[in-house]
Formats: sequence, structure tokens, C-alpha cells
Amino acid sequence: MALPACSIVIFGATGDLTKRKLIPALAKIPLAKSTEIVLIGRRADNAGLRNEFLAFTKDAKIAKRFRYIQMDFNKFDEYKNIEVKHDNRIFYLATGPESFPTITKYLERAGLASPKPARGWHRLVFEKPFGYDLQSAQKLNHELTQCFTEDQIYRIDHYLGKELVQNILVVRFSNPIFERLWNGRYVDNVQISVMEQHAVGSRGAYYDQSGALRDMVQNHLLQILSLIAMEAPTTAESGDVHDEKVKVLRQLRYVPDSLVLGQYAAGSISGKHVPDYKDEDGVGKRSRTETYAALALAIDNQRWMGTPFYLRTGKATGSSYAEVVMTFKRGSSLFHGKNGQPAPNKLILRIQPDEGMRLQFNLKGNDCCADPVLMDFSHKAEFGMNTPEAYERLLADVQRGDQTLFSRWDEVEHAWRIVDGLRKVHGKTGKLHAYRAGTSGPEEAKKLLARDGRSWHGQ
Amino acid sequence: MALPACSIVIFGATGDLTKRKLIPALAKIPLAKSTEIVLIGRRADNAGLRNEFLAFTKDAKIAKRFRYIQMDFNKFDEYKNIEVKHDNRIFYLATGPESFPTITKYLERAGLASPKPARGWHRLVFEKPFGYDLQSAQKLNHELTQCFTEDQIYRIDHYLGKELVQNILVVRFSNPIFERLWNGRYVDNVQISVMEQHAVGSRGAYYDQSGALRDMVQNHLLQILSLIAMEAPTTAESGDVHDEKVKVLRQLRYVPDSLVLGQYAAGSISGKHVPDYKDEDGVGKRSRTETYAALALAIDNQRWMGTPFYLRTGKATGSSYAEVVMTFKRGSSLFHGKNGQPAPNKLILRIQPDEGMRLQFNLKGNDCCADPVLMDFSHKAEFGMNTPEAYERLLADVQRGDQTLFSRWDEVEHAWRIVDGLRKVHGKTGKLHAYRAGTSGPEEAKKLLARDGRSWHGQ
Repeated sequence: MALPACSIVIFGATGDLTKRKLIPALAKIPLAKSTEIVLIGRRADNAGLRNEFLAFTKDAKIAKRFRYIQMDFNKFDEYKNIEVKHDNRIFYLATGPESFPTITKYLERAGLASPKPARGWHRLVFEKPFGYDLQSAQKLNHELTQCFTEDQIYRIDHYLGKELVQNILVVRFSNPIFERLWNGRYVDNVQISVMEQHAVGSRGAYYDQSGALRDMVQNHLLQILSLIAMEAPTTAESGDVHDEKVKVLRQLRYVPDSLVLGQYAAGSISGKHVPDYKDEDGVGKRSRTETYAALALAIDNQRWMGTPFYLRTGKATGSSYAEVVMTFKRGSSLFHGKNGQPAPNKLILRIQPDEGMRLQFNLKGNDCCADPVLMDFSHKAEFGMNTPEAYERLLADVQRGDQTLFSRWDEVEHAWRIVDGLRKVHGKTGKLHAYRAGTSGPEEAKKLLARDGRSWHGQ
Repeated sequence: MALPACSIVIFGATGDLTKRKLIPALAKIPLAKSTEIVLIGRRADNAGLRNEFLAFTKDAKIAKRFRYIQMDFNKFDEYKNIEVKHDNRIFYLATGPESFPTITKYLERAGLASPKPARGWHRLVFEKPFGYDLQSAQKLNHELTQCFTEDQIYRIDHYLGKELVQNILVVRFSNPIFERLWNGRYVDNVQISVMEQHAVGSRGAYYDQSGALRDMVQNHLLQILSLIAMEAPTTAESGDVHDEKVKVLRQLRYVPDSLVLGQYAAGSISGKHVPDYKDEDGVGKRSRTETYAALALAIDNQRWMGTPFYLRTGKATGSSYAEVVMTFKRGSSLFHGKNGQPAPNKLILRIQPDEGMRLQFNLKGNDCCADPVLMDFSHKAEFGMNTPEAYERLLADVQRGDQTLFSRWDEVEHAWRIVDGLRKVHGKTGKLHAYRAGTSGPEEAKKLLARDGRSWHGQ
């Protein structure tokens, strides 16, 4: 489907997000011929800045679409400088969230955006953090919805743009063999891991106000969980999918005593020394911010009764990867495994890197036992390197008006309820377990599964 | 488990089977130190013959175990020349089946073999053809069991020694996810294909008396079918497994009007001209022998009610391969496939070449449809080239006394009942469809599935 001609207006154009993600993605997707990109920032326009815009893309042709406007977006008067060619308009807020209410209010007041445009469409795009907790998120949402309606708002969670995450619905709902096994009768537990090898680095000041629960669990992990756990939607259309995701989020229940929070201590990653989290730039010397979180959630419905969902995410861990591991219940077996009963069957959805799917099953090993082996599907090997990056997919979807892969407000709201609850639990116990940078996380996360007679995949 | 010391006595030692299969296999398995190989043939012993014995193995050390005895095994007097060192004895009949009764009778009479040896064990090994039809098979078996009891008899079906065939039981009964899907509620149909690229070549005289039904369906195909379709045995032990296989064979029912027989006509394979079957050496000019067979079988039990098993086998086909394809029923799908509904899920067990397993499922293609992709497990890639060849495995099993991978008499008997029935059907219609050598077989085999709204995998 060809993308419609539109004006893409990016606030905060001189920031990292624009230069590293948005411009490279826009350079790759097949924009309509007359689509323009209006870049708005405070810095003066000059050749140096222009070069920065192109630093992360190989396709300099995108520059023909650029129009740079230098302005202070806190000053209403300067909005008159914004000219847009098309009635179809995308306003991408690549600024700090504290500016969102001001920008949207002035956009509407200046007549650039309207909840009901007379011609074309007006869409608002921004990324997390969607607030700091439920209350602040509600406040922010209230302010934004003064100027934009929910169906104009595209909340980006870039994990939802990843190929394997998009594929969760197709895997589940076009493959009868998977769908038939996809419930608590057959699934023993589900593990969702999003691990980041890098430490906070230059983002210490931001991160220290956030932490793993707010920065990762509230959005990426709960979004993946809801896609994995949701009931079949009536159709694959956006509204129906979001309805089912919200239902699952509402049925989520924290498993008591399961929250494990950690903070990294000095260590080394790939041979490089990593300082103690508290010694990172911008981090308070007495910081209690968690850089690691693991927990168990139950889902109170028929499908998932008795099947825990284990979540974990951390910074400065041994490696970077994101995956979902569905471990199936054991059955009676005619054959022994190497150490007693055979390994359980597992379905592994690798989100990054090396996106693909794997099925662990047992075959006769050389010693006649039932040995676990992996059946493998590599997305790259099958579809080549041409699969679009997350931002390409998402920016194209905004232009198409497809909200499926964006977070709807009620999802955000329910995810905050859960995370606020977890933070309250933490407030009472206050435990924060140290783990050495470069390891898989605190020992307590292993104990969390061990007490249920389970273990993290790959451990 | 170390193999016990024994004397392996091979009748027909100068034939192809011994030189091409038995000696190379014996050279590879870890025989006990004092195990000897007694080679019996009519030809005079000389250096030329000794070299022939070693022509197909790289390990000349096996020659130290050889003792060659020149004799006419139709003459009882000459059996006194047979000396064996061990009480544990294997008698391998690598001769034509017409000699089996004579050899076994004389072995017993000469005191070399006994149904109840005072010390050690005596075992008899031979290969198909196990008779020519039910009646001749019963006669042969009656004669052999005058001298050997059923638990001393090892009927080799070399397909049962193949890694993936051995693995069918492990796949089914140590993997709950497969076992749960392994029934007619989820499986739409099962296809068993054993295709041979080579024409009859020098085996025309033998083959023309046999044909695809007797040469392939009666043994290899029905053996594979019974492993795929059987109920879970009480244990993985030989007796229990054979009991369940027999149960399935007894429940097999020919689907009326489904038998398609064919005979190859001149064509070309890999660029080489292949003559009309009737023009092959040793084949009658008016031969009505089938070189191709396809048919549908139903299994009258709860598990497989409504799920047909399609079998096909042929000579001089486009390529050589053996595989089982289990096609799962379609479910409702939220997504379209490229041509209407998405492709069905399939589980493919590749027996040869490139043994391994594949699962066909749907993922989002580049055009947003549900596109079929393959998840792959390659046996060679996982376990290396070290997996034993069929004969190695089977010859080791004879020494261990494990009858699991051999055909028990009642299996042979019931398989003949089925094949005799099929031949009777054919006798009435008499149709024999020509197909060009180098193609996949007669068009009628495609129509057989098409009339059920199905198609052969890969076609």
C-alpha cells in the first residue's frame, strides 16, 4: 500500500532520537513523492547541523525533503514560523516529555493541529516515558487529549515494531498447532527476558529517576506479555487487538514475594571495566534505583490458570538479548533423559538479536537417551536482511493510520497500575540486591524460580 | 554396553550384501576382542577374494577376524567343516531365500545351532523377501521355526535401522507437545513416501517377480506406518513395541478405489537415458509388474478415525528420498495466506537423505500475509557424521539380543495379508499406469489425493 503524501513535523530535531533513529528510518521507507520532513530545533541552521542529520543514513536523497526551522517551542509566537505543505500532518515529539503539553497546546492554538481537522488528518507521535507513575501518566494524558483524540495519538514502543514481536499474533493465530498448545493445560511457565549488556553510560541522570520497572517492565515487557497471553481477538484489526491486550493486563496479578530488584556493582563487560552504578555520571551516591528486576505474574483466567509468567530485565548484564521462552509441561515418557526425565519441550521466540524461533524437543542421542535438540528458524536466513527495522515499520504505520503496534491509553494506564503496585511492594521491603556488572543478575532471581522447581532458560 | 564375544557366521559371503553392507558395518562397530567372522561361500579362497571382502571398508583390521570356509551349503556333509569358536553364535543368511530352509535344517542337524542351546545363544538373521505372499511366507516361517524359535530370529528391514525411523518412538513418546497433536483430531492426513531414483538395473530378473507392493510396501512402508500410527506401548521394550505395531497392522483397512499402480516407461534420470521397464535385462517383454504404487489406508481406531494414510513408492523417479509428512488440520486463522487461507502446519520426518525433522508453520511474510516457513533440525548438523549406518546399528542389536528394530513374525504375516488384499484388488482392475522414468510417478497418484482435496507434499 503506497504511503500518503504528508508533512512530518519533528520537534527536537537536533536530538539523538531524530538523528539516530527517525531520519535513517524515514530514508528507508518509500515516502510519497511530495512528503516533506519539517525539522524543528533550537540550534542555528548551518552545514554542520545538516551533516549531523545525515550522519546515520547512507541515503543523502532524504535531505531534499528537509525543511529546518529554528525556534523555541516554548514560545507560542514562534509557531507562526511553522509552515506545512500538506493537510495530512504528523507531529513527532522527539523532545523531553515535559514539553509535550506545551507543544500540543500551541500546535492546536496556532491552528496547525486539530482534533477534527477539516481536511486530511493530524497525528501525534511520541515515546516513553508515558509519565512517571499512574498519576503523572493520567495528568499527561489528560493534557494531550485536550488537543488530540485517542485515535490521533501514536504512542511508540519500539519493541512492538520488532519483527518477532509483530509476528507473535501471526504465529499464534495462523498456526493451529501452536494455538492448541498455547494455554495452561500444556504450558508450564512463560519467561520473558529483556537483557541489556550496556550500563547506563551517559543516561545516568535520566535513568536514576526511572529504574528497570518504569523504564522497561511498564512498557516493553508488559506489552510482550499481553501479546503472548491475550485471547484471540475478533479480528486482527487494531481496536480488537488492543481490547484483548487490555483484558489480559487487567487480569494480571503479582505473585506475592516474587519481586527481585537489583543494582549493578562494579564489574567488567567484554573486558571493559564498568563502575558501580552509584558511581555513574548523574547517579546519586546513595541511589536506590533498581537496574534489574525479576518477578512472577499470574493471569487470573481460564487459559492461564496455574501458569506463571516470569519477567526479568536488567542493565549491565552479560549479554544483550530479548526472548520469550514457553516451557511446556512434561508428559509421561517412555525414554529417560540424561539426568532422569527428558528435558521439557520449549518454544523460544527470539526477539533480538538473531531474531527467529526455536523448538526444543527430544531425540535419541548417541547414547540412546532422549536428548534435547533444537529445531531452528532464523528470520534473517529466510527473509534476508530486508526486514524493516522497528522504526521504519512504525513510521510507515503512522502514515497508514494503523495503530495496532502502538500502545493505547488504557494499556498504558493498566501497565502503570501494575508497576505502581510493584513499586509499593518494593517500598515495604526495600531490598535491593547487588550483582556484578557483566553477570546475568542477582542470585535471588535464580532462587525465585528455584523455589518453584524451575530455572531460567539457558541457565 | 559392550558387545559380547561371539561367532558371526555368514552364509553367502561372496555376494553383494556381505561385501557392500555386512563387512563394512562389522568393521565399524566395536566388536568384542575375540569375536570371529566365519565367511561361507562356494568360491575358492584366494587373495583376490580376500581383497573383495575388504573392497568396501577402509578398516583392513577386520580381516584378522575372518575365517573363510569354501563349501556347498546344500550338502549336509560339508557342515562338519564349519568350526565356531564361541557358544554365542549368529547365523546370517545372505543367500537367496530358497536356501534358508536347507541351511537352518542342516545347521541344527549338525549340532551347530539349537532352539535351546546348552550354553550361550544362537541367533538367525536374514532379510526380505520374507516369502512371496502370505502363503509362501507362512510356509517359509514354518520351516525356519522347526530349527529356531521366534526369539532367536532377527528379520532385517534395513529401513528400521535408519536413524530417523528409530527416532520415531523417541519423537513421539518423549515429547508431550508432539504426542498431544498425534491423532486424528489434529492430523488431517499422513503421507509416507519412499522414492528411488534408480531404475531396476541389474536386478530386473528378481524385481520382475516382486514389484513395488511386495518389494517395498509389504516391509519398509508398512513398518514405518506402524511406528507412526501405533498406540503408546507399555514400555519401550521389544515385545511391547511389537505388540502395538501388530495392533495397528490389524486395524489397517484399504480405502476402496485408492490403489494406483504404475510401470516406468523410457525416460531420463540425471541426463542418462533409462529404457522402458519392459526392456530392462531380465524383465519380461509383457511384464505387468508394478514399479510404482500409491494407495490410501484407513486405520479403524479412535486415534486415527477419519485420517487417511497415503503411501507411495516407486522406482526410476525424479529423486531418491524417504519421508513422512504429517499435515495438520487447518484452524480458523486471523490472517490470510498468499492464496486464501494460510498453508497448513506440517511435521516432516526426513528418513533419507539429509535425515532430520522440519516443522512448517506460518509467519508474517514481507507482504503481511501468513507465509509458510520451515523450522529445521538436521540430524547430521547436530550429531555429526557419527550416527551409525542402518546395518551397523542392526548388527550390534543382534549381538545385544535387542529385537526392537526387527520384524516379528506376526507383523510380517499381517503385512502380507494387507499386500495380498491389494494384489487381489489389482487383479480385478488390472490397471497399470505408465510414467516416464525421471518423473514423480503416474498422474493418477496426484488425482488420488486431489479427489480428497489434498496434494502430495512438495508437489
